[in-house]
Amino acid sequence: MNPQEPVRQAPQNVVGRLSLYRRLLDEHPRSSGEHIYSHQLAQLAGVSPAQVRRDLMSISVTGSPSRGYRVHDLVRSIERELDSPEAQFVVLIGVGCLGQALLSYVQGRRSKLVICAAFDIDPQKVDRVFGGCRAREMSELEPVLVEHDIRTAVLTVPVSAAQEVADRLARAGICGILNYAPVRLRVPDGVYVEDLDMTMALERVAYFARQRSAAGGDAR
Amino acid sequence: MNPQEPVRQAPQNVVGRLSLYRRLLDEHPRSSGEHIYSHQLAQLAGVSPAQVRRDLMSISVTGSPSRGYRVHDLVRSIERELDSPEAQFVVLIGVGCLGQALLSYVQGRRSKLVICAAFDIDPQKVDRVFGGCRAREMSELEPVLVEHDIRTAVLTVPVSAAQEVADRLARAGICGILNYAPVRLRVPDGVYVEDLDMTMALERVAYFARQRSAAGGDAR
Repeated sequence: MNPQEPVRQAPQNVVGRLSLYRRLLDEHPRSSGEHIYSHQLAQLAGVSPAQVRRDLMSISVTGSPSRGYRVHDLVRSIERELDSPEAQFVVLIGVGCLGQALLSYVQGRRSKLVICAAFDIDPQKVDRVFGGCRAREMSELEPVLVEHDIRTAVLTVPVSAAQEVADRLARAGICGILNYAPVRLRVPDGVYVEDLDMTMALERVAYFARQRSAAGGDAR
Repeated sequence: MNPQEPVRQAPQNVVGRLSLYRRLLDEHPRSSGEHIYSHQLAQLAGVSPAQVRRDLMSISVTGSPSRGYRVHDLVRSIERELDSPEAQFVVLIGVGCLGQALLSYVQGRRSKLVICAAFDIDPQKVDRVFGGCRAREMSELEPVLVEHDIRTAVLTVPVSAAQEVADRLARAGICGILNYAPVRLRVPDGVYVEDLDMTMALERVAYFARQRSAAGGDAR
């Protein structure tokens, strides 16, 4: 690791890859057998076999050189690392199109992660149910966070409201924010923020599409 | 760099950081002056000053030790690297909640990136306008891609349709796909895919929130 990189990048990458391995193993057809080699998982994940082995050793999983890893054991070990023993409650703030899409996508995909409450300032949305989750008034935010000991929030509000809501979340004990608002949030040191900026992602894809199109000539 | 990591990671990371620097510079208040030091930009971006200087040197930008970088010049240099000289057209497939949210978020944020057409199988959506973009029938997909020489697509269809649509896109000359469907797509070598899996992102945030909450004790 480059010593000039911030240390917090490393565990974030490992956690991200473990989460990816689990999803790939979930998709792994049973017909492919009960075992998987590091090089097979590596190819699916787009990383090196050595990277896979290092990541799995970091959660004390070692494969057999002749048979690889047992898929079932591997999934259980990743679950033990990533999931909380109990259900972990999450709130979502901002029930616009994106918030509604998230509510319906995320619900039920990981039984341990439950979006238990959604909030919006729009009175027309309050008390309606979106993806199995009832929208509430913003004034209920802090009481709900305390009552259910919630530490994780998804932020799908407009840019203009994002910092103010982030401030409220941090004051109310939230430790992790998944931020979809295209703005960098200022939060206290103890709060982990991950930005999912759709414009920036599209910029990257457009850049590489252009490069590849130029490299391939006119393939049409 | 670790020689076991795939080489393609490096440019992807650099492009991602250049895109982030530009967004941060866009947000940078004019009152803070016309210049910015690498350590200031590094702090905003959450990377090391040396990383900032390396990234900017890779696009031939060097700052002055006494005054740093001129913000205006920096933004122009990043634009030259990331943006195509002409407008770059993009299509979006799947005008559900998420697709609609993307259409309204992305439109107008980067004048060079234009989602010029959206597609859906639902006859009730066809010919309606979402975020300034008219939804079309799927049968129009290939003709539109060829007519406008489009190489970039956003995929916001359900998992069950994702691979089939990705196959059509690849056959029609698409070189970059921003994939929101929570499934790993199989595409030819020449196609760049970036996955934005909301469940995986939420998993990471929940993991770090739990760790920090435990480390901080009961802060409430």
